[in-house]
Amino acid sequence: MAQLTPRLARLGHVALRTPDVAGSVAFFENMIGLEVAAASDEAAFLRAWEDHEHHTLMLCASAETGVDHVGWRTVTPGDVDAFADLLIAEGIEIQEVPAGTELGQGRAIRFQTPSGFTYEIYYDVEKVAPGGSRLKTNTARAWARGISPRRIDHVNLSTTRVLAEKTWSEQMLGFHTREFVSLAPDALGAAWLGVSALAHDLALTTELGDAHRGLHHVAYFVDSASDVLRAADIVAEAGLVVDHGPGRHAISQAVCLYVRDPASGHRVEIYSGAYLVLDPDWEPIEWTIEEYGQWWGAEVDRTSATTSMGQTTPW
Amino acid sequence: MAQLTPRLARLGHVALRTPDVAGSVAFFENMIGLEVAAASDEAAFLRAWEDHEHHTLMLCASAETGVDHVGWRTVTPGDVDAFADLLIAEGIEIQEVPAGTELGQGRAIRFQTPSGFTYEIYYDVEKVAPGGSRLKTNTARAWARGISPRRIDHVNLSTTRVLAEKTWSEQMLGFHTREFVSLAPDALGAAWLGVSALAHDLALTTELGDAHRGLHHVAYFVDSASDVLRAADIVAEAGLVVDHGPGRHAISQAVCLYVRDPASGHRVEIYSGAYLVLDPDWEPIEWTIEEYGQWWGAEVDRTSATTSMGQTTPW
Amino acid sequence: MAQLTPRLARLGHVALRTPDVAGSVAFFENMIGLEVAAASDEAAFLRAWEDHEHHTLMLCASAETGVDHVGWRTVTPGDVDAFADLLIAEGIEIQEVPAGTELGQGRAIRFQTPSGFTYEIYYDVEKVAPGGSRLKTNTARAWARGISPRRIDHVNLSTTRVLAEKTWSEQMLGFHTREFVSLAPDALGAAWLGVSALAHDLALTTELGDAHRGLHHVAYFVDSASDVLRAADIVAEAGLVVDHGPGRHAISQAVCLYVRDPASGHRVEIYSGAYLVLDPDWEPIEWTIEEYGQWWGAEVDRTSATTSMGQTTPW
Amino acid sequence: MAQLTPRLARLGHVALRTPDVAGSVAFFENMIGLEVAAASDEAAFLRAWEDHEHHTLMLCASAETGVDHVGWRTVTPGDVDAFADLLIAEGIEIQEVPAGTELGQGRAIRFQTPSGFTYEIYYDVEKVAPGGSRLKTNTARAWARGISPRRIDHVNLSTTRVLAEKTWSEQMLGFHTREFVSLAPDALGAAWLGVSALAHDLALTTELGDAHRGLHHVAYFVDSASDVLRAADIVAEAGLVVDHGPGRHAISQAVCLYVRDPASGHRVEIYSGAYLVLDPDWEPIEWTIEEYGQWWGAEVDRTSATTSMGQTTPW
Repeated sequence: MAQLTPRLARLGHVALRTPDVAGSVAFFENMIGLEVAAASDEAAFLRAWEDHEHHTLMLCASAETGVDHVGWRTVTPGDVDAFADLLIAEGIEIQEVPAGTELGQGRAIRFQTPSGFTYEIYYDVEKVAPGGSRLKTNTARAWARGISPRRIDHVNLSTTRVLAEKTWSEQMLGFHTREFVSLAPDALGAAWLGVSALAHDLALTTELGDAHRGLHHVAYFVDSASDVLRAADIVAEAGLVVDHGPGRHAISQAVCLYVRDPASGHRVEIYSGAYLVLDPDWEPIEWTIEEYGQWWGAEVDRTSATTSMGQTTPW
Repeated sequence: MAQLTPRLARLGHVALRTPDVAGSVAFFENMIGLEVAAASDEAAFLRAWEDHEHHTLMLCASAETGVDHVGWRTVTPGDVDAFADLLIAEGIEIQEVPAGTELGQGRAIRFQTPSGFTYEIYYDVEKVAPGGSRLKTNTARAWARGISPRRIDHVNLSTTRVLAEKTWSEQMLGFHTREFVSLAPDALGAAWLGVSALAHDLALTTELGDAHRGLHHVAYFVDSASDVLRAADIVAEAGLVVDHGPGRHAISQAVCLYVRDPASGHRVEIYSGAYLVLDPDWEPIEWTIEEYGQWWGAEVDRTSATTSMGQTTPW
Repeated sequence: MAQLTPRLARLGHVALRTPDVAGSVAFFENMIGLEVAAASDEAAFLRAWEDHEHHTLMLCASAETGVDHVGWRTVTPGDVDAFADLLIAEGIEIQEVPAGTELGQGRAIRFQTPSGFTYEIYYDVEKVAPGGSRLKTNTARAWARGISPRRIDHVNLSTTRVLAEKTWSEQMLGFHTREFVSLAPDALGAAWLGVSALAHDLALTTELGDAHRGLHHVAYFVDSASDVLRAADIVAEAGLVVDHGPGRHAISQAVCLYVRDPASGHRVEIYSGAYLVLDPDWEPIEWTIEEYGQWWGAEVDRTSATTSMGQTTPW
Repeated sequence: MAQLTPRLARLGHVALRTPDVAGSVAFFENMIGLEVAAASDEAAFLRAWEDHEHHTLMLCASAETGVDHVGWRTVTPGDVDAFADLLIAEGIEIQEVPAGTELGQGRAIRFQTPSGFTYEIYYDVEKVAPGGSRLKTNTARAWARGISPRRIDHVNLSTTRVLAEKTWSEQMLGFHTREFVSLAPDALGAAWLGVSALAHDLALTTELGDAHRGLHHVAYFVDSASDVLRAADIVAEAGLVVDHGPGRHAISQAVCLYVRDPASGHRVEIYSGAYLVLDPDWEPIEWTIEEYGQWWGAEVDRTSATTSMGQTTPW
């Protein structure tokens, strides 16, 4: 019965590996404008000014860059065990993560997706105490530094196995597909999936070659297209290369700008203007590879995830 | 069991009475910039360019202005009967509305709330066929005329009984309270409630005097604060009075502008920038009457719903 | 003596040839959102909502597309004769244009620039009567249709002889160079020149090949970068190709979008955010070809003026 | 002969007295976001990121708040002596200000206007060396801190003698009146005057009572109405009171926000969207007191200049 299925509420956080935690913190704190909840040589925890959880971005010291894990928060506390039961029943190995293992977070479970991404499912988390802003619903002051996004939005993961990953995400985790790009029968170029009202919480993008997984980007939301352009000003003035954009995606209708953390190579999207999915009967929208593209503006470079070996995608 | 409770997905539409359907259509089509799905001397049906249902605004010919009914769409088809059962069990009279009674809408149920508002609950509705825009997720072209909002957002109803209406909405319809203004113990000045991820789908505002119910406003969403200011330009150029705004509400953080339909007196809010409720554990936020106010900008006139007898509210 | 030198006040209008006046009017009226002052099969006259002259754009029926002439308005009535004297003294042939020859315009003089552009210098012109807007300083309502720019800004002309044209414009017409791109000693790729406080009223862009003159673009100003993006939405929804942009030029700092009139091929820039030259001692700024580029955003196609034979520029 | 009349090019700087230089610097540097060129206990010198002169704002230690002087820059070096001659011929006392008296500034002359404002006229000034920004035409990085305006725009002075001050400014200094509010025959409520292409460089606002002069506000320009709203966010988050706005003035069409320096009480306007005066034949526009008002948005408090004794203006 559908109602008894456990449900994910939202993307909680993305944990990224970086060979230079301090350098990545400098980028995400000063350029992107996130708040640092805690930072050490080993790890740092950051959030935006409307994020209510302890962190929405974790930076982990590692010789190699890449995605450490993606954290998904459930609708109810009981959903964590319910997901564990479901996954175990499918033969998937579950790792228990005791409360406190990750700073600010309660007990969680971890497991691997078909593409080899490590996902974390949890409900208990430290909420930010009020007082960071005069606005009761904010956890820090807006416009304090840099681009100053409002909240985390979504994660986009690159994989060689988009279709398999999409199907599994729907069946095991309850994601709904919002839009997808078909390359051929039984071949997807990309898919955008959601559990919340956001246009998507998770995107899957084709990655060619041996590297079968990586981060395409993590997206933080700003209020308006003006703010995306202001981000472009900030990025250009800092001498960083705009990875691509600004432009408006035909998919999601979002206005976007991409920039990479110089310390890790991870790509961040500054994002605004996507639709919301408030209707209960959204039908997945298909785009052929011919139709697919930017609504306007600079094309996004789809050639490489952080862990890419340099191959380009066919589209 | 929580999961078995029927759920509302979203505000579907607001039906407003007007003594001048053609005049109100002219305002909502040309000034606000909605699309007319159908119109006759008796009724008109309009929607915004990202609304997917047949209509989100109905205008009904009537000697007196006022709210005819508010339509709420459920998450599943079965939720309609489940709500009917719940309401009947509480002794509330249910009226069956056969499919087609309201243009573009399937079978629905109607009933009165404690304040006397007529609510309609339905799932089946005619979705707009694709093709109205080159963007697959839009149902009409943006920027075709006037203010050109993207989608309906919420309804704000005035009542003399905010607390009772709020409690009933939570218990019977599953609304969650996001923020509220307390006047005294057991007295609320206003409350903002949601069923979707929007900051609120329903607001309740104190109305004094004999008139115990009416429309405070119906809100349509635009993408940015810039668009709210563009709306102010359009309203001022047309010689209409900006009812209040632009300003940013402390509650919801939305940037707002209010303007009235000259033909009916109904107030429309042009609205952008509110937070989303993506967290599963949002705690209602209390504001005292002393704390309450605009974050910045012109104060909103809270003196009167459409059906007001002219009394002013105490705040 | 410098003070006695005649002075140009501003760009008055650009007159473009089009094989399809009605088609070009449809584009400039409905898509760009200009007001039509007058139109016939032979010619049409348009202006933006803050343009005070009878027209800032003239469309002339012609078998071939191209620039018919560019009109420059002087600071004083006497400046017209003073310019005539100066030009005649240099051996330049002057053509008298009696009042009324061009609709809404008084007496003017015409002549050829070194690149072969026809310039018109005039002072007397019909000013638009008040009443077109509730704002006393506007001549029409803003946001009435389409992109709805505020006023003409500048003209960008392509020529094979940028350096000669620039020097002549400075010496004979009193233009001041604001910025320029140097290709080599004694070779310019482009130059931006002004007579008013605008970042530039005239730009000169290299055009290769036999075609030694043409329109690169005529620019209309919108208030903000948001409005440039709104223009991109309108252009994309109409199925027109964004010729390039949105982006921010390093030169002028303007945010730009380029779109072509389908009927004539003429390119229009939607433009905002340039600096003003209020200082009396602006020094021309040199960019090498290596430095030159967009500050951010899609590169502008510099390959072709309207009359181009298809050769590409070297930069 | 008109061409031989000396000319002012632009507003150069405003020098304000403050009882707390450090406190005022903190406000203008951190909240407004200006760059500090130099600061001591006695005086501080600031500028915006596109200001090219050494400073556009001077803060002078003084027991009493108020306007110290207003600096106007001429079109040519010779204009300074020409103005001195003109003023002396009218019996106005001229004070020589040797180069270096004011940091970063060459030789100047000072004198009193009919209302008793001290004006400074100069040409020689230290221009900011390039290198403060990657954009060659900027002198510092945009978006570094706080509101981050682009450049100084205008000064608005309060006086009991608007008409006399306006007439004198036109006759002696070459100002042109752009718009004015008439209270009665021979009585002006306010006037807006320009020497550059800006809608106004100088505004004069009626001040009642014994205090016959003071600062209404100094205005700094931001690129868009969005940036004005961002300024409102920053001001509100800091717990400062928005003195008035945001709104759009009918006069100048500018979108505005007013905030006061807590240390001195001086009012700053964050300003965008005014028209430019590019036409050589602008006719002054009259507004009656009945017509006058905001185009939309919160009314501006016109009750008091910094040195006001608390009387309110009649409009």
